[in-house]
Amino acid sequence: MNIKSEIADLRSDSGRSGSGSSLNAVKTHVRELRPYTLNPCQTGVKLNQNENPWDAPLEIKRETLRRVADRAWSRYPEFVPRPLHERLAHFSGWKTEGILAGNGSNELIQALLMVTIEGGKRVIINEPTFALYRQVTTLLGGEVISVPLTPDLNYDSIALAEAVASVDPAVVIICSPNNPTGCVLEPKALAALLESFRGLVVVDEAYFEFSGLTVVPLLDQYSNLVVLRTFSKAMALAGLRIGYLLAAPELVQEIGKALLPYNLNIISQTAAEVAIEMHGSMLQPLVRAICNERDRLQEELKQIAGLIPVPSRANFMLVRSSLDPRIVFRELLRRDILVRDVSGYPLLEKYFRISVGTPEENDLLLAALREITLK
Amino acid sequence: MNIKSEIADLRSDSGRSGSGSSLNAVKTHVRELRPYTLNPCQTGVKLNQNENPWDAPLEIKRETLRRVADRAWSRYPEFVPRPLHERLAHFSGWKTEGILAGNGSNELIQALLMVTIEGGKRVIINEPTFALYRQVTTLLGGEVISVPLTPDLNYDSIALAEAVASVDPAVVIICSPNNPTGCVLEPKALAALLESFRGLVVVDEAYFEFSGLTVVPLLDQYSNLVVLRTFSKAMALAGLRIGYLLAAPELVQEIGKALLPYNLNIISQTAAEVAIEMHGSMLQPLVRAICNERDRLQEELKQIAGLIPVPSRANFMLVRSSLDPRIVFRELLRRDILVRDVSGYPLLEKYFRISVGTPEENDLLLAALREITLK
Repeated sequence: MNIKSEIADLRSDSGRSGSGSSLNAVKTHVRELRPYTLNPCQTGVKLNQNENPWDAPLEIKRETLRRVADRAWSRYPEFVPRPLHERLAHFSGWKTEGILAGNGSNELIQALLMVTIEGGKRVIINEPTFALYRQVTTLLGGEVISVPLTPDLNYDSIALAEAVASVDPAVVIICSPNNPTGCVLEPKALAALLESFRGLVVVDEAYFEFSGLTVVPLLDQYSNLVVLRTFSKAMALAGLRIGYLLAAPELVQEIGKALLPYNLNIISQTAAEVAIEMHGSMLQPLVRAICNERDRLQEELKQIAGLIPVPSRANFMLVRSSLDPRIVFRELLRRDILVRDVSGYPLLEKYFRISVGTPEENDLLLAALREITLK
Repeated sequence: MNIKSEIADLRSDSGRSGSGSSLNAVKTHVRELRPYTLNPCQTGVKLNQNENPWDAPLEIKRETLRRVADRAWSRYPEFVPRPLHERLAHFSGWKTEGILAGNGSNELIQALLMVTIEGGKRVIINEPTFALYRQVTTLLGGEVISVPLTPDLNYDSIALAEAVASVDPAVVIICSPNNPTGCVLEPKALAALLESFRGLVVVDEAYFEFSGLTVVPLLDQYSNLVVLRTFSKAMALAGLRIGYLLAAPELVQEIGKALLPYNLNIISQTAAEVAIEMHGSMLQPLVRAICNERDRLQEELKQIAGLIPVPSRANFMLVRSSLDPRIVFRELLRRDILVRDVSGYPLLEKYFRISVGTPEENDLLLAALREITLK
């Protein structure tokens, strides 16, 4: 196996801003943003992007290809992908008019921020968390207020409540389970947050299948709650870019104004429909296997001197390392294993992140880590 | 044949703004925007979206499906779709570092406006033109200044130059050939525009294959020129959502900051690569056939009393009708033919728009129009 994979690398663009007349048209705070890039890298064991380590089941791929072969590729998708929205409604237990499908959940968080954020508006995020929230808010001219996790890397619901009370944010974004820590915000703390202010609370549930926790049942009660979901993790379709958003229908209509027409191509739409249809028989067993492997990895990592795994409710985990995590990263790469070096994130100087792989991949990882830490 | 198609319908959302506390988080100028929607509608002859009337050739579909069946769908696309960018560079005659592929050209115009437009910034468009430019600019808090076409529906390059000189726009957007009129801005007028101010000039070449005109050769000379292209028209892949942007590499880097990571799924990437590889043998003949049919339609429409076709360099044309165009639209729909009612656009009260179909579809359209206008 020789999967194409990638290493995080924030390139500096020092000295770029302001050079060349055409760049003057670009907003100053955009020019000051460092572009987020990843360098391509080939490894046999790829544990850096929290993907499903098994490919989408053959039956799902075959049925998708069979359905799309007969469709006209030259025709635009339907304006609203109603058949997909209906399946998503049934799948998630929320109403069809309260659902938006997108080209990855990234597109949906961007649309939400586009209709809420402008100069002078504030967004509260936790830190460390998924980098995109900050990137898009900054691009739109909004201000990011970040609330650090607790020292043991859990949500600090008291600090969060205080921040909300003091800065009057337009939006609060909670990733739960949180990337890259794996912690969850308990539904009770979330409900308190939803009641405490009038802005929107976004709960990114990209990894909810691995935690078994969802806040979708709260949607009926709170019209300021927005839930994001993705097909890139448990649903094994990261390459097809499919996400969805759940919220009150009147809010969905406003967010939809920032979604570009025909945002989701016909093949990804079809794949999503097939994946939902076959979810129980084909994908749920993979999720259970991943959770079992996660628990096994936790136990085995605890036995390795110098490593302390952080309890996680997702399909990845942080590992605290007494050896410099950048060295661990490089040594694993030398052994054809790619993990994520997160030592540049706030609070995570001593950590690296691993995605849960197949049992064979996890065995290779464990053996390599034993070797590296023994040196 | 029973293709799913759509009718334009701008729904009113009167009385919506401000109701419900969660909507208070949405920016006022977004709440005031009317959502752009299309109602689904089934017709046998679909001439309303300027699609390629022939489906993507079977060889392109088969080769795409063959290549993607072997890939892991569970893995994210590469961070930069380099193989596609390289093919696009060769195909367009511009440098690889000056190219961005996107989920439709819509996504690219949105990214460009996101990095340039905020409250107080101005965008010049012509009118009538593609509705998305105004929609996205407004959403971002920018001001749209529109320059009307001449009474005979051509670009008014003098008025355009005057507007640029007087309002100091951040961006000027030219759709050439223009949707929905089919007129082109001559390269000389464009060059004068590019020299006259420091903002960006975007030329949307969605239909350039049907005009044989492109401004790509000017990219070397003007670092404030941005060209947009699409695979939705001549390339017969509207359902797969693929567009690309060409500009100076340093500008492309800035625009890329507003593109979401992994914006283009692996199947659409693959289809675009295959379409480029097979373009000469498979797609160019379709473009020639469409241009021939366009010219035939022009001649035949002139013979129908009460109709005057507008000369067009694209794969569609406006038709001026002495009968109310809304009646023509409805009568065509009764005969299972869907065209675009554009009578609500500025200057176009007396017009409807038709896409060029296959010879058989065009014959059906002509026969129906003869019948309707005779009544």
